[in-house]
This record gives sequence, C-alpha cells and structure tokens, in this order.
Amino acid sequence: MANKEVVLLDFCTSMFGMRARIALAEKGVDYKYKEEDLDNKSELLLKLNPVHKKIPVLIHKDRPVCESLIIVQYIDEVWNHQSPLLPSDPHQRAQARFWADFVDKKIYYHGRKLWTTKGEELEVARKEFIECLKLLEQELGDKPYFGGDTINFVDIALVPFYSWFYTYETFGNFMIKESCPKIIEWAKRCLQRESVAKSLPDEKVVYEFVCELKKKRGI
Amino acid sequence: MANKEVVLLDFCTSMFGMRARIALAEKGVDYKYKEEDLDNKSELLLKLNPVHKKIPVLIHKDRPVCESLIIVQYIDEVWNHQSPLLPSDPHQRAQARFWADFVDKKIYYHGRKLWTTKGEELEVARKEFIECLKLLEQELGDKPYFGGDTINFVDIALVPFYSWFYTYETFGNFMIKESCPKIIEWAKRCLQRESVAKSLPDEKVVYEFVCELKKKRGI
Repeated sequence: MANKEVVLLDFCTSMFGMRARIALAEKGVDYKYKEEDLDNKSELLLKLNPVHKKIPVLIHKDRPVCESLIIVQYIDEVWNHQSPLLPSDPHQRAQARFWADFVDKKIYYHGRKLWTTKGEELEVARKEFIECLKLLEQELGDKPYFGGDTINFVDIALVPFYSWFYTYETFGNFMIKESCPKIIEWAKRCLQRESVAKSLPDEKVVYEFVCELKKKRGI
Repeated sequence: MANKEVVLLDFCTSMFGMRARIALAEKGVDYKYKEEDLDNKSELLLKLNPVHKKIPVLIHKDRPVCESLIIVQYIDEVWNHQSPLLPSDPHQRAQARFWADFVDKKIYYHGRKLWTTKGEELEVARKEFIECLKLLEQELGDKPYFGGDTINFVDIALVPFYSWFYTYETFGNFMIKESCPKIIEWAKRCLQRESVAKSLPDEKVVYEFVCELKKKRGI
C-alpha cells in the first residue's frame, strides 16, 4: 500500500482520531499521518470535511471519509482480507454498532462534562459516567475483549478514552478503578496490542492538552 | 415470513419508528406492529431496550435490535435478497452513513428546538435547521432520490421528518418550501412509494401529538 494512497488528517489527543489509527494498524495499512492545528485548520481539512470541519478525515484514493465510526467501518470494508472488526453475523453486527454508538452518545458526552463543569453539574456527570461505564463492563463480562478473543469495533470505539481517564479522574476527583476494575484490566489488555499502544498518547499528554484548553477557554 | 417472527415496538409519530417501518416495507417483510404507550412503557420494551428504554425496537427471532439507523442496517443485511438500502461500494456506503448521521445530529436536534424553544433560541434553531436542510438539498442535487434512482439509507433516514414539517413550520413560523423547494419535491416523490406512504402519519396527527406534549410539559 503506497503511503500517498492513504492519508489521515488527525490530532494527537483526539479519541476519534485514535480509533482510525487503531483500525488502520489492525489492518496493517501504511498511511501518512498529518497532524492538524485545530486553531488554524488546514485548507485541506476544510475542503474535505466542509460540513463538520472536524478531524479525523481519512483520505483514500483522494476521496475523504469523515466521522470516526464511519471511518472504522470503511477501513473494515475496504481492507477485508484480515482482522475483521465487525462480526459477520447481522445480529452481532447490530450489537457492536449499538455499543459503539453508546460510547459516542454517553461516554464522550459525560466524559467531556468531567473537565468542563463544576459543582452539581460535575456531580451528575460523574455519576452518569460511572453508570455508563458499568453498563459497558457488564457487556464485556468475562470476555478478554468486547469482540471476544480479538478486539473489534466496540473495543476500538472505547479504548481511546482510556488515555483520557487520568484527565477525567483528576478534574472529576474520582477513581474509575474503584467502580469499574474490569474496564481498567480490559484497557491494559488492549494496550498490550501494538495497534493500540502506538495509537494512544500518554495520559499526561492528554492532561496537559486539556489544561491548556481550559486556560484558553477560561474554564 | 411468519408474523410472529418479526415484531416492531413503535410509536406512530416517531420519526425513528417510521424509518424501521419504511425499511421493512421496502424489503416486503411482514411483521407485527405494537404501539407503545410512552407514558407507561411495556415490560417488553424495558426488558429489550434496558439501556435507552426507547422505541423503536425490532424483535427478530426473539432477539432485539435497537436504535433506528442500526435497525435499518440490520434489516438491509438480513433481508438482502431485494431492494438494497446501502450501496455496495464502501465509499458510497460511508457517504450514505455520513448523511444519515447528519440527519440524526442536525435535523433532529434543531427540529426539536423549533417546538420547544422561543425567542432568540428559536431564531437560531430556525436558521440552523434551514442551513442543514440546504446542505441536504445540495447533496440531493438533481437526483430523484439520495440513493439515485431508488430510495436508500439516507432517504429512509430523512423522509420521516417530512411528517413533522407542518409542526416545525407552525411553531417555528416559517415555510420550509421557500428555502428548500427541492427537498419538498423530493419528499412528495418519496410519498408516491407505498413503503413511505403507509409508514408516515398525517402531518396533523403529528401536530396534535406535539400540542398535547407541549401542554403536558407546560411549554
């Protein structure tokens, strides 16, 4: 696969970008990584994702694919010779899509409130975040991965958030491990895979990024 | 297909439920429709969708599938002998998923504000709603349907909102036709299909439902 054929417009600490990185790594796709300056987005990004103007954007054969879960499905469909990310059974596929969507709707939403709100709002966010993570822990059950013996769509959707846990815990003043020990074990298991290890930034990098962001926004 | 094999837990005026109804009709799947009382949800609904507790839920061979766009994809994958709803080309599939997701994120979101807010917030919602609909009109272009010559995933995601247009226009005090005439023409074209016509309630039924809802919630 020639480098110039696949390009990823991305930003290091983006959990959505990480998903695309993990999926490409799982498939063994060689690609060119382009870090965006989110304060000064490139012409290319604005041209290829004019609707949302957001990273990640996967460029394959000069055509853009936007929105991280759509990108991961695209990667799974194009490079279908190895490491299937979605199950082949339609009901299991629907379940995987359900939980990945749940991560977007709940974990991202409440997680964001953990570092953007205070007082009562923060308390609610903390409670909701833990409750949602517990539901995921229940769904994981005793399996090594959400995908069973190998990582799949749900693992890829969720594991990037692990690099944000330190930030969530620090600003939210709580310990995820106390309520969801199995999720922590699962995340550490995922990190033993090269695809995940090389796609996730250090938790301190995320924390420093968020500190800067809070300063900039005066929150 | 035996009736008892496929069941849809639904609510008449739900745009999300309508999506499932249209997809099932396009595929010629016979099913049992169960109207839910949203003020007093059935044990079955709470058991089968314990996470979101929302309709629609498609029950197929005693297993639930939740979230309307996931249901439509499931229907497309299981009854794959006719009327493909998603394109077979991965890039076109990604595009279809992108616009269906856009409908969920933008049209639903701003549409809801048209009947739940007032003053400045309503004004912003009206502007945003029209801008988003214009983007969809642009994506439609001169094609009869978003899917080209036949309706596809995006058509099914969007057309249920047409039954809400009268409500949006009445509470939002604007005429969608003035800004987006092609979307209106497209919706009328969709309604010529039996699958759509029998799945969408009359606009006045939606309007009366919303009036009741506003009264109940004191808005």
